[in-house]
Amino acid sequence: ADCQSQQDHRKIKIHRVGVKGLRYPIEVRDKNFESQHTVATVSLLVDLPHHFKGTHMSRFVEVLNAHGRMVHVCNVFSIVHELQKKLHAETAHVIMEFPYFIEKNAPVTGSKGLVDYQVRFEAAAYLDETDFVMWVTVPVTTLCPCSKAISDRGAHNQRGYVSVAIRFVQTIWIEDIIELVEASASSPIYSLLKRPDEKYVTELAFDNPVFVEDLVRNVALRLNANQDILWYRVEAENMESIHNHAAYACVEKELET
Amino acid sequence: ADCQSQQDHRKIKIHRVGVKGLRYPIEVRDKNFESQHTVATVSLLVDLPHHFKGTHMSRFVEVLNAHGRMVHVCNVFSIVHELQKKLHAETAHVIMEFPYFIEKNAPVTGSKGLVDYQVRFEAAAYLDETDFVMWVTVPVTTLCPCSKAISDRGAHNQRGYVSVAIRFVQTIWIEDIIELVEASASSPIYSLLKRPDEKYVTELAFDNPVFVEDLVRNVALRLNANQDILWYRVEAENMESIHNHAAYACVEKELET
Amino acid sequence: ADCQSQQDHRKIKIHRVGVKGLRYPIEVRDKNFESQHTVATVSLLVDLPHHFKGTHMSRFVEVLNAHGRMVHVCNVFSIVHELQKKLHAETAHVIMEFPYFIEKNAPVTGSKGLVDYQVRFEAAAYLDETDFVMWVTVPVTTLCPCSKAISDRGAHNQRGYVSVAIRFVQTIWIEDIIELVEASASSPIYSLLKRPDEKYVTELAFDNPVFVEDLVRNVALRLNANQDILWYRVEAENMESIHNHAAYACVEKELET
Amino acid sequence: ADCQSQQDHRKIKIHRVGVKGLRYPIEVRDKNFESQHTVATVSLLVDLPHHFKGTHMSRFVEVLNAHGRMVHVCNVFSIVHELQKKLHAETAHVIMEFPYFIEKNAPVTGSKGLVDYQVRFEAAAYLDETDFVMWVTVPVTTLCPCSKAISDRGAHNQRGYVSVAIRFVQTIWIEDIIELVEASASSPIYSLLKRPDEKYVTELAFDNPVFVEDLVRNVALRLNANQDILWYRVEAENMESIHNHAAYACVEKELET
Repeated sequence: ADCQSQQDHRKIKIHRVGVKGLRYPIEVRDKNFESQHTVATVSLLVDLPHHFKGTHMSRFVEVLNAHGRMVHVCNVFSIVHELQKKLHAETAHVIMEFPYFIEKNAPVTGSKGLVDYQVRFEAAAYLDETDFVMWVTVPVTTLCPCSKAISDRGAHNQRGYVSVAIRFVQTIWIEDIIELVEASASSPIYSLLKRPDEKYVTELAFDNPVFVEDLVRNVALRLNANQDILWYRVEAENMESIHNHAAYACVEKELET
Repeated sequence: ADCQSQQDHRKIKIHRVGVKGLRYPIEVRDKNFESQHTVATVSLLVDLPHHFKGTHMSRFVEVLNAHGRMVHVCNVFSIVHELQKKLHAETAHVIMEFPYFIEKNAPVTGSKGLVDYQVRFEAAAYLDETDFVMWVTVPVTTLCPCSKAISDRGAHNQRGYVSVAIRFVQTIWIEDIIELVEASASSPIYSLLKRPDEKYVTELAFDNPVFVEDLVRNVALRLNANQDILWYRVEAENMESIHNHAAYACVEKELET
Repeated sequence: ADCQSQQDHRKIKIHRVGVKGLRYPIEVRDKNFESQHTVATVSLLVDLPHHFKGTHMSRFVEVLNAHGRMVHVCNVFSIVHELQKKLHAETAHVIMEFPYFIEKNAPVTGSKGLVDYQVRFEAAAYLDETDFVMWVTVPVTTLCPCSKAISDRGAHNQRGYVSVAIRFVQTIWIEDIIELVEASASSPIYSLLKRPDEKYVTELAFDNPVFVEDLVRNVALRLNANQDILWYRVEAENMESIHNHAAYACVEKELET
Repeated sequence: ADCQSQQDHRKIKIHRVGVKGLRYPIEVRDKNFESQHTVATVSLLVDLPHHFKGTHMSRFVEVLNAHGRMVHVCNVFSIVHELQKKLHAETAHVIMEFPYFIEKNAPVTGSKGLVDYQVRFEAAAYLDETDFVMWVTVPVTTLCPCSKAISDRGAHNQRGYVSVAIRFVQTIWIEDIIELVEASASSPIYSLLKRPDEKYVTELAFDNPVFVEDLVRNVALRLNANQDILWYRVEAENMESIHNHAAYACVEKELET
C-alpha cells in the first residue's frame, strides 16, 4: 500500500513539504580553503502537485545521507537537485543552520580565542533556476550615542546581534560578512581578552558610539560598496543594558531584476 | 543634546526600527464578547526617513502605556496610528504574541479543562492603508495513514502544531480558526480526559488518519469556503513519534488584489 | 480496565510522577493586597509507591481546576494537600512559573512603565511537613569595575539577571526581593526612560561598578540581615557586552536545622 | 590595577564563579575508540575564597584553549585540575553539553541513518577528590497501555525523552546508556525508516506499551543490574499526543557511601 502515491482530489497544491529540525554533523569550507566540523539543523522541502496525496519523507533523509558531510556554497545544490529528482518536484529547498567558529587575536596582546557565529544557508531551485541566500549573525558591542552625549561620565553599552542575509554573484565568504559587521559596530566581541585588551575595547566602544540605526546603516553602506552583492537584509538587535527589552532596526535592499 | 534628531547623511532609509521583546499584560476580547487576561510579547516598529539619525525609543513604550491593556482586532489600530503620529512615521507595525485559553468539554464525560493556543496579531499601517494578519497555532493529534495501512495493529501518532495566518474582511474569531483546524486533524487535543474520553479520542484518531499534507489541505478547503478570508497561510508540523525530527507542510493562498 | 491501579512487581518506588508544562492563567496576590493576572507554566507531581503500576494523570488537572485561579503563598498548599489526598501520595509538589509585573517610576521624570520579572513558586509536602521556595529573577544593569579602573574613558556594562531563591518564616514579598536586588546592582532596569532618566541611570551605573561576584555578595549581605529568611541561593549571570558568553556567580546559604 | 585581587571584606565565600554559555567545537571519543566532531556549550566554574574580590575570567578561557579539542571521560579532568591551579581554587567544575550522533540501521531494511542524542558531562574536583556525572537524553516512542487496553482499535503514542544521569566505577559508554533506554521503551526512534521498517516499529510499539512510570522503572532495573553504576537519576517526559502538556516521571538511586 503506497498511500502517498494515491490520487488526491482536493485540488490543492502544497507549496512546501518535507522534514524539519533534523540535526546533522557537517563540514563547512572556510575562506582559507580549509574546513571546519560543526553540527547543522536541517530542513529539506519540496513542492507537491495537487494530484498526489503525499510526499515520501524517507527519501529526503536518503538524499542528505547520500551527499556526505562536506557542505559549501556550490555543492549544496547537488542536494537541492537530487531532491527535485528523487521527489519528482519542481522546486526544492535546503536550509542549514549551524555555528561557525573563527579564531580571533585579542587586539593588544594577540591572545587567541574562538568566537562563534550563527550561519544559515538557504539554497533553492525552481525548475532550472537557483537561488542562494546566506545569513550570518554577528555578536558585537554597541554603545549608545545619546547616553554618552548627555551623561557626565560613562555611557550604557551592551551586546547586540547583527543578522545579515545576502544574495551574491561571486562568492562572499562568512569571514567577509563578519569583518564588515564588526567594523560597523562600537567594537568587535572576543572570547579571550587580557587586561590591556579590555582597556582597548572599552575605549574603542566609547569612541565609536552607534545606535541600532547607525549599525544597520553602516553595514548597508559597506554592502552597497560591494558589486557582487545583489540583495541584502540587515537586522540589528541590542540586548539593552538599561531595559529588559531589545532595540531593533532593519534595512533591506531591493533585489534588482 | 537630541542625538536622534540630528541630520543623517548616509542616505539610507530604515525600513523598521523600534522595540522588541517587551512583555506586557493584556486583556483580549473573545467570541462571547467577554475578555480574558493574558501576557503578550510585543514589538512596536516604524520606518525612519533617511535624513534622521535615530528614532525615539521611549515614545514607543509611552504609546503602548497610553493605550491601556484592552486589545482587540479593532482597537489595536489606535496604537498603530498613534505610533505613526508620535514618531512622525509613514508606516507602523504592532506585533503581539500571547497564549489564549479556551475551556473545552471532554468529548464523552464533558469534563472541563483549559487548553492554551498561541496567537499573534500583526497590525500595520502604511500612510492611510491598514493591514491585519492574525496567526493562531493549534495543537492537534495526527495519526499516520501509511503506518495504519501497512501495520497489522496500531498506527504511529503524535502531537502536531498547525499555524494558520489569515487576512479577512469581516472579523474571524480565534475560536473559529481553532474549531476549523481541530476538525481537520485526526483528533482535537484536550487538557483533561477521563477514561471514556481517552477511549473516544484514541478511536477517533485511528478512524481519521492524516498526513501533514492532508492536514494543511483540509484546513485550506475550509478556509476557501469562507468568503471573508482574503488570504491565508497554513503550516503543519508533526513532532513525529518515530523520528527525532518533524514532518512539515505548508500551503498558502495568494492575496487577491 | 484500570491499568494504573494494577500491582507492580518491579519493586521500584517512583520519586516524582505527574504533569509538566501545563499553561494556566492565574491571579497572583501582590504586596499591596491587590492582585494581578498572569499566565503560569505548571508542574504537578507526586510520589508513587512501588506496588502501583501507574498514577492517574487526569486527577492532577482536576485538582488544579478545582482550586480556581487565585494563587498565593498560603493557598497554594491547598493544591498540594489535595494532590496528596486524591492521588493517595505521601509527597506532592506544585511548581508554578510566571511573569510578574511591577509599575516603576523613572528615577528623574517619574514616567511610569511596567517591568517584568520571572517568578517561580515551589510548594511541596512530605506527609505533614511542608516546604516553600520562592524564586525571583531580576534584570539589572552591571558595570565592570575592572574595565572602569583600567580605561581612560567609559566602562563596559550589560544586562544581567539575578535569580534569588529563598525559604522564609514570615512571608517575604516578590517586591521585597526585587528591591533588594536592584539596590545591589550598578543600576535598576526600567521599561521607560526619558532623556534625564537615561543620564541618571548611566551615571548611577558608572558610579556603582559591580562584578557578578560583588552582585551576589551584595544580595547575600542584604538577605543575611533579614531574620525571616532561613535559606537562600543567589545566582547572577551577566550577558557580557564584550564577549559572546556569560559571566556567572553563585552563593548559597545552608539551611539551618 | 588588578581589581580582582583586591581584598574583600564582606566575608562571603562564593561557591561557584566563572563563565557560562561558551560554545566550543570538540571531538568526543566513542565506544569504538574512534572519535566524532561536535559542538559543545561549556561552563567553567571555581569557588572563590571570601577574602578575594573577584576571579580572573580570562584564565578560564585560556585553560580551555590550552587543553585542545579532544574531550573524553578521562582527559576532561586535566581541565578541571588546571582550573584549580590557575585560579587558586579548591573546587572546579567543567560542564559540557553537546549533541552526539549514532548511525543506526533500520530494523528491517537495514537502511542507515544518524540519530542525535543530547549528552552532558559534569566533571568536578574538590581538592583531591573528583566527581563525574554523565547525562544522556534519548528520544524514544512510548505507547500508552491504558489507551490500548480501553480502545477497540489503535492506542495513542508519542515521542518521549528519557534523561539518564549516572556516576560509575568503570567507564560506561554513551552507547551503552542509549541501548539500555531504547530497550526499555515501546520502540527506539530512527531517522530513516522505509515502509517495512515503519510497519515493524508501529507493531513493536503496539506490542510494548509503557507509561512514563514503566519507562523509568525499566531503565532503573537495567541500571541496577550493572555493578559499575554507583548512582543514577532517570527522568522520562512524554510529549503527549492527546494533550498539550507532558507526562513526567523520575526515579533516583541514592549514592552509596
